[in-house]
Amino acid sequence: MTAIKNRLNHLFPKMREWRRHFHQFPELSFQEQKTAQIVADHLRQLQLEVQTGVGGHGVTGLLKGKKPGVTVALRADMDALPIQDQKTCAYRSKVPGVMHACGHDGHMAMMMGVAELLAEFREQLSGTVLFIFQPAEELVPGGANAMIEDGVLEDVDLIYGVHLWTPLPYGVIGTRPGELMAAADSFEIRIKGRGGHGGLPHEAVDAVQIAAQLVVNLQSIISRQIDPLDSGVLTVGTIHAGQAFNVIAESCHLQGTVRTFKEEVRRHIQYRLEEITKATCRMYGASHECRYQQGYPALANEEKAVSRIREAARKIVGKKNVWDINPLMASEDFSYYLQKRPGAFCFVGAGNKENFGYPHHHPLFDFDEQAMRVGAELLIRLVLAEAVPYVCSSLFFTELPS
Amino acid sequence: MTAIKNRLNHLFPKMREWRRHFHQFPELSFQEQKTAQIVADHLRQLQLEVQTGVGGHGVTGLLKGKKPGVTVALRADMDALPIQDQKTCAYRSKVPGVMHACGHDGHMAMMMGVAELLAEFREQLSGTVLFIFQPAEELVPGGANAMIEDGVLEDVDLIYGVHLWTPLPYGVIGTRPGELMAAADSFEIRIKGRGGHGGLPHEAVDAVQIAAQLVVNLQSIISRQIDPLDSGVLTVGTIHAGQAFNVIAESCHLQGTVRTFKEEVRRHIQYRLEEITKATCRMYGASHECRYQQGYPALANEEKAVSRIREAARKIVGKKNVWDINPLMASEDFSYYLQKRPGAFCFVGAGNKENFGYPHHHPLFDFDEQAMRVGAELLIRLVLAEAVPYVCSSLFFTELPS
Amino acid sequence: MTAIKNRLNHLFPKMREWRRHFHQFPELSFQEQKTAQIVADHLRQLQLEVQTGVGGHGVTGLLKGKKPGVTVALRADMDALPIQDQKTCAYRSKVPGVMHACGHDGHMAMMMGVAELLAEFREQLSGTVLFIFQPAEELVPGGANAMIEDGVLEDVDLIYGVHLWTPLPYGVIGTRPGELMAAADSFEIRIKGRGGHGGLPHEAVDAVQIAAQLVVNLQSIISRQIDPLDSGVLTVGTIHAGQAFNVIAESCHLQGTVRTFKEEVRRHIQYRLEEITKATCRMYGASHECRYQQGYPALANEEKAVSRIREAARKIVGKKNVWDINPLMASEDFSYYLQKRPGAFCFVGAGNKENFGYPHHHPLFDFDEQAMRVGAELLIRLVLAEAVPYVCSSLFFTELPS
Amino acid sequence: MTAIKNRLNHLFPKMREWRRHFHQFPELSFQEQKTAQIVADHLRQLQLEVQTGVGGHGVTGLLKGKKPGVTVALRADMDALPIQDQKTCAYRSKVPGVMHACGHDGHMAMMMGVAELLAEFREQLSGTVLFIFQPAEELVPGGANAMIEDGVLEDVDLIYGVHLWTPLPYGVIGTRPGELMAAADSFEIRIKGRGGHGGLPHEAVDAVQIAAQLVVNLQSIISRQIDPLDSGVLTVGTIHAGQAFNVIAESCHLQGTVRTFKEEVRRHIQYRLEEITKATCRMYGASHECRYQQGYPALANEEKAVSRIREAARKIVGKKNVWDINPLMASEDFSYYLQKRPGAFCFVGAGNKENFGYPHHHPLFDFDEQAMRVGAELLIRLVLAEAVPYVCSSLFFTELPS
Repeated sequence: MTAIKNRLNHLFPKMREWRRHFHQFPELSFQEQKTAQIVADHLRQLQLEVQTGVGGHGVTGLLKGKKPGVTVALRADMDALPIQDQKTCAYRSKVPGVMHACGHDGHMAMMMGVAELLAEFREQLSGTVLFIFQPAEELVPGGANAMIEDGVLEDVDLIYGVHLWTPLPYGVIGTRPGELMAAADSFEIRIKGRGGHGGLPHEAVDAVQIAAQLVVNLQSIISRQIDPLDSGVLTVGTIHAGQAFNVIAESCHLQGTVRTFKEEVRRHIQYRLEEITKATCRMYGASHECRYQQGYPALANEEKAVSRIREAARKIVGKKNVWDINPLMASEDFSYYLQKRPGAFCFVGAGNKENFGYPHHHPLFDFDEQAMRVGAELLIRLVLAEAVPYVCSSLFFTELPS
Repeated sequence: MTAIKNRLNHLFPKMREWRRHFHQFPELSFQEQKTAQIVADHLRQLQLEVQTGVGGHGVTGLLKGKKPGVTVALRADMDALPIQDQKTCAYRSKVPGVMHACGHDGHMAMMMGVAELLAEFREQLSGTVLFIFQPAEELVPGGANAMIEDGVLEDVDLIYGVHLWTPLPYGVIGTRPGELMAAADSFEIRIKGRGGHGGLPHEAVDAVQIAAQLVVNLQSIISRQIDPLDSGVLTVGTIHAGQAFNVIAESCHLQGTVRTFKEEVRRHIQYRLEEITKATCRMYGASHECRYQQGYPALANEEKAVSRIREAARKIVGKKNVWDINPLMASEDFSYYLQKRPGAFCFVGAGNKENFGYPHHHPLFDFDEQAMRVGAELLIRLVLAEAVPYVCSSLFFTELPS
Repeated sequence: MTAIKNRLNHLFPKMREWRRHFHQFPELSFQEQKTAQIVADHLRQLQLEVQTGVGGHGVTGLLKGKKPGVTVALRADMDALPIQDQKTCAYRSKVPGVMHACGHDGHMAMMMGVAELLAEFREQLSGTVLFIFQPAEELVPGGANAMIEDGVLEDVDLIYGVHLWTPLPYGVIGTRPGELMAAADSFEIRIKGRGGHGGLPHEAVDAVQIAAQLVVNLQSIISRQIDPLDSGVLTVGTIHAGQAFNVIAESCHLQGTVRTFKEEVRRHIQYRLEEITKATCRMYGASHECRYQQGYPALANEEKAVSRIREAARKIVGKKNVWDINPLMASEDFSYYLQKRPGAFCFVGAGNKENFGYPHHHPLFDFDEQAMRVGAELLIRLVLAEAVPYVCSSLFFTELPS
Repeated sequence: MTAIKNRLNHLFPKMREWRRHFHQFPELSFQEQKTAQIVADHLRQLQLEVQTGVGGHGVTGLLKGKKPGVTVALRADMDALPIQDQKTCAYRSKVPGVMHACGHDGHMAMMMGVAELLAEFREQLSGTVLFIFQPAEELVPGGANAMIEDGVLEDVDLIYGVHLWTPLPYGVIGTRPGELMAAADSFEIRIKGRGGHGGLPHEAVDAVQIAAQLVVNLQSIISRQIDPLDSGVLTVGTIHAGQAFNVIAESCHLQGTVRTFKEEVRRHIQYRLEEITKATCRMYGASHECRYQQGYPALANEEKAVSRIREAARKIVGKKNVWDINPLMASEDFSYYLQKRPGAFCFVGAGNKENFGYPHHHPLFDFDEQAMRVGAELLIRLVLAEAVPYVCSSLFFTELPS
């Protein structure tokens, strides 16, 4: 792999340049038009079979090896966030109110590098690599499902995804078998009481009191109604009612999120939430609307694919830097791919306390660009582990074609 | 009284004109400059001893009878409300966003008529009448207290106030001995938790959950902690927390009102509210601010003064139209006068379902102007009952000096 | 009335003797057989028209005056309580576990004295006096209703009742117009969940948690759902669930009481209690039983009858000892009579801090027997006020026939 | 192992006999005197080094092999439960109110058989086997800690424990690496309010209402204050307050249990429970007592020891009958041994739906005695895996010395 490392070192300035370009011109979910154009142009230049407009602005590039073999898909996401970039560096966002605050710019640059490198020795590859550039990871219903519906997984045997991750320090790679990321659903409840004079509660149906009672009642779902061995979170994030201190509020609006790792727990929480909302409102004579919207399902890594990631990771960052991390309560629409195909998702450390300490989605978010080199090597090793087993040793220890 | 009735009929068009002028040019609480000017000019014209700038824009006019006797004060309030008049009649408010939506315009016009009529026969009066035109009834801390501090009650023996009242039909006069209107206090609570990721409740201090628990806990004050024979209301009118469904809210802001009739109940509710707020927030690791602001105290009518009102009222509208009404949960700073002097407050019916059915403070509020005639006669009779007992019969049955 | 006072003084030792006999041989509600026998024998001896077995063990004695006039009923209650007398005086209860701990023994003795005294000058009476000795006041459904159903009120124009009362000091008489005593209802709720292992809440339906939520939810009835001008109490007096700390309780049993003064408030609280219980149990998947049992209705005194009591009382104890008392949260089946006929109920002070300080229903309860003289005089004056108006003055100021 | 299997078959009738004897003469926790005597006699007869009175009625037997090697401890528990045996079979308990309702009789019989068998070929053993017969597993503080304090683990390298388990079918062996059983703590809360008349809540401090609020408040610990990735249960199992429906209860008594798998979660729940109890009681003016008693800690299996159990188990019941089970919310004081030494605990299926379907601690509990053969073989194999590696094959495939 010395060869690959050298080649990656050589490619790194280009990856950084790509990343910084994307960073300056971010595009929101479902609007990744120009981004997709750049990606597609690059893949075409590498003479891959390119498809555009897959599941929206999605782009795929197919790299066919000379010999038959399995098809490995690698996925990068392309969308930015509706956040105003507050950084002062030269490559900060040039688009007001839009920002690559989650690292998707890095994912794309990394993948473009991987594609370029692997394309260089397609002669030696057996099997096929499918590069998936997915739109709209940040916004439910997401781009993954749309690309799957457009058939992107049809010939895929195995799929990997990498997230650059500032909560992990640069030089660390983390993942786990089984549940890695949560299902993240949202709900919205509107309680409709009857407004009235603040001094005449008996003539009103007090939406504030009912909402308070509801939030209290909802606690029992997690505390008593799910298996304590399972994980579940029900957060009411917003509550808004009333304009005047001396008027009984007519209605109350609540929003929240539910996080789970198992479908049955997810469905049970939804069911209980709807039942408790209905019963609480009826109990006090209020009507209500309750909209529960399923977000991305939980992301569950296949055990074998995790083993392969760990094996590859150990070679790159050393055994003690391959971490078995806890499941995250955040969600990812990569989970949809894993519902259809074997594979795994992992995190490549891209943070450090001095320079890259801001969390993802923060207006000052940035990551250590060196991590793209680690991520790229990881993806390449994962492909090679499948696609060139018979030439493995030679590839690892000799120079690549220049 | 035929004489007085005739005189009032004669005066009524002027009263209506004054009222409609005030109605078109309303002034907000503490800003009643022009209104006060009109009132003062009128009283000076009647050759009363006029003082202006009493407790803000307050105006008083002293009418001294020829012979010694008690001093009876009559009070009208002058301020309008920050409401956009939505009526279409010609005399609707000409001031954007300001409106006489509570009838104070009528109170002034009525009192100006009463002053004019009583001034006409000051020769026959024993004792003194003090006309109090008070600013800022609608806004705590109110104008009553300020006028009292400026000495307005110094020589007063007895005080009456009348409110034109659309919830009572025209032709009815209502009052009751003892508590007639509530103390109306306000409070504001700010819960400061610690915001966080919607999926990581254990790292946050959830202001929404704490606020909900607080509202529930507060119910016990009314349900268990005050004497069931006493009245008390604690309404949380507004609750606002959080901007995003998937973020645990850092803080929550609640506002509400407390209504009571007894000082001890009022103080107990305030004490319990502060204690429960403190304990609930501490229990969950949140800090808080709790501001309790006392509004006007409860308005308690003196029994004897109520008897005099009823007696006078029966002569005007007949026994069956003098109603013993329930206490109101609304408040009035007339209560301050009654804390210092004997007297009473009453409601003169000014509504009917066809034309004047909107509640006070409504953008379409209006009242039956005929009610000003009833209110004026009531005030005059109340004054005469004190001030001219010995000529009572003659006054009631003969013509007034023209 | 000097004559009456003298006569009462003369009778007092007999009244005390009767009282102490009753006190030693108390009989429980619905079992007042021997007590009734004593009463009936006495009334027959006075040559009244006596009926027994009225509404159970009830006894009536009719005393007809010589001349026509109204019929005034006086009522005493006869039953004792299932309490073990802990006094040490000679006249303490001789019946284990049964005790006159509410003063009904005194009520009977007082009335037997009144009957004897009034019977003495039946020649001078116009109208009629009906002495009602009622069984079972302490136990719902009570004896009053049964006697009414047996026609006891048929010819009655007016009815009075007196309660000897240790919370009032000897020498005081207290009552009030309108609501004097509350309606006192009881309820019983049985929550049926599903028991289970203390570590497996999701497999159980936790009756303790549901009951707790229910008690919290019920607070809102008093705090938000009745008019703050009305009085209402909802107390959950008992809660019992579970035998083992580590087993989820299958069921929970709650009992409580509701106190109100208005039928509409009473009915509303019952309705809301049943609705909230149903909704809370359903919300968490439990079934339930809810039994609401109406006790005696609120006792409402007629205003005129109260005036007569006050007038009579002033003559006995002086104006400053006639107190206008607050409504009591306790209940009385005298309320049934007042639903059918004009009349009033009042309390005759029978306590003092040194000797008679224990509350009614206490195992050490006793009262100042002198109060029987006051109560008897009050009843006599109330009868005379109706029955001998034309001879009033002579009766008041001359000697009675001996 | 054919030899061992044969030998076990030969021994089985004795094991059954022992078991049935123990079953008929059960002894409660801390009272296992006669039971210990029987065990000690048996071990002495096998010429083991026997110690009695270890940590109470505990017995140990040391079997030293001829050659040096590691010391493996095997543990059986000896105590019965305060349950009335309701079975009708001949070997049902002869001691009223005491019953081996958890299978400890089987554990002892199984271990006595293992000791007898291993003692037979001590010549071939290298290393040492320590048989631990522990008292008082059922009752906190348990016997394990006492035996450890008496030094029972001093020379032990590795320890195993087996539980016969009817929830698993006969023929299955189940365990898991890491947390297998929960920490089970108990708590007791006494709320002290102020009793009072059911109609006068403001004069009382209502223990029922406060307890209800407390149970509701406690829900938030599990729902919001522990990491959703951790497990925790807080069950209030009993609540008792009040004797009369119309009296406000003076005090309320609650008991419950807390189950956790991590010490930090356990400590956090205890801390929050105490804080919330304190704050809730103070909020309403009540005092309280809160006693939190730590039970056994969570039982965490060492990963390697679990691998050895699985390996041995596969040889006995086949791969598909070696189950990876979920952690149990029940607790075991075997956890104390595992805090000091490597080792593992596992469950040997002893149930079937037809005959042995009752749960542990049920008055009709019984288990399939054949399971003792499986358990014994498992223990023997675990010992041999450590103690006779070099003679393994010969032992497995040749006859044992008779």
